[in-house]
Amino acid sequence: MRVLGVDPGSVVCGWGLVEGQPGGPRYVAAGTIRTAAIKRGPSRLKKIHEELVRIIDEFTPATLALERHFIAANVQSAFRLGEARAMALLAAAERSLELFEYPPNAVKLAVAGHGHADKEQIKYMVRRALGLDAGEALATDAADALAIALCHCGRTRGAHFTESIERNRADSGSIAR
Amino acid sequence: MRVLGVDPGSVVCGWGLVEGQPGGPRYVAAGTIRTAAIKRGPSRLKKIHEELVRIIDEFTPATLALERHFIAANVQSAFRLGEARAMALLAAAERSLELFEYPPNAVKLAVAGHGHADKEQIKYMVRRALGLDAGEALATDAADALAIALCHCGRTRGAHFTESIERNRADSGSIAR
Repeated sequence: MRVLGVDPGSVVCGWGLVEGQPGGPRYVAAGTIRTAAIKRGPSRLKKIHEELVRIIDEFTPATLALERHFIAANVQSAFRLGEARAMALLAAAERSLELFEYPPNAVKLAVAGHGHADKEQIKYMVRRALGLDAGEALATDAADALAIALCHCGRTRGAHFTESIERNRADSGSIAR
Repeated sequence: MRVLGVDPGSVVCGWGLVEGQPGGPRYVAAGTIRTAAIKRGPSRLKKIHEELVRIIDEFTPATLALERHFIAANVQSAFRLGEARAMALLAAAERSLELFEYPPNAVKLAVAGHGHADKEQIKYMVRRALGLDAGEALATDAADALAIALCHCGRTRGAHFTESIERNRADSGSIAR
């Protein structure tokens, strides 16, 4: 199951894809969508939307994972973040992806072991979890997006485990009958 | 010049089209996009986006006008409003519409003569300005969207006037040569 993590921002939008598999998640691809060169806000949103749809079509993830924020520096930054996030929500709906949202400290906890890890710690732990060698460039926003995808894989690992137990139990039940 | 006013909301999104013309703006169409029956937020956004693009394609406005908010009840409502607004911004960018934003009290001032008019007053003044007869149904959110479009027409009337003066002056200049 392939998961696309997205860390939206109107100037830099990070994205990262991992493949959830029994031996632990595998790195697929990651990058950033940069819109600083585009003057107008609506054209920036259009670029973010277009790129996210292109990434979904190229890598065919089944799930999109996002952070769900509860605070913002101020109302204007909440509006801007809402607008950028909306491009990811729209792309997920247009391509029928399952959507999951996690609080930022849950993502940090899942990846770095505590809820207050800084960006460098997150990047280090993401690299380690996915076995990326030091030569491979990884932008901070791309690392954040991979962290969100990894958080989702961590959460669903438990669910899969439960599901597989129940499936086995049902199987043995049918044998017994 | 046709103007599409949009009053975005995640549950009800109002829209209204007016044609700016020398004798005063003319009513073209108005309505609401209602998404209450759709459970998931991303699917609501998709519906708003799809409908706005359909309206633009059907009525071919040159301009999209929106309110620019500076306050919100709280951060969560700012996120939700930002997400709904983003669908209008994206549709404008995708169809290469000019975009104009006005503070809510500028819209009220333009339509009702003072910046603190309530929704019923706005609706009454919109009906009067566009000569809509009492039999024609007009949802409150559609009236708000028409008010935004009317505000834009009021703003640009001055600009058109200046432009026409300058054009005449240039014409007479060419005659004199």
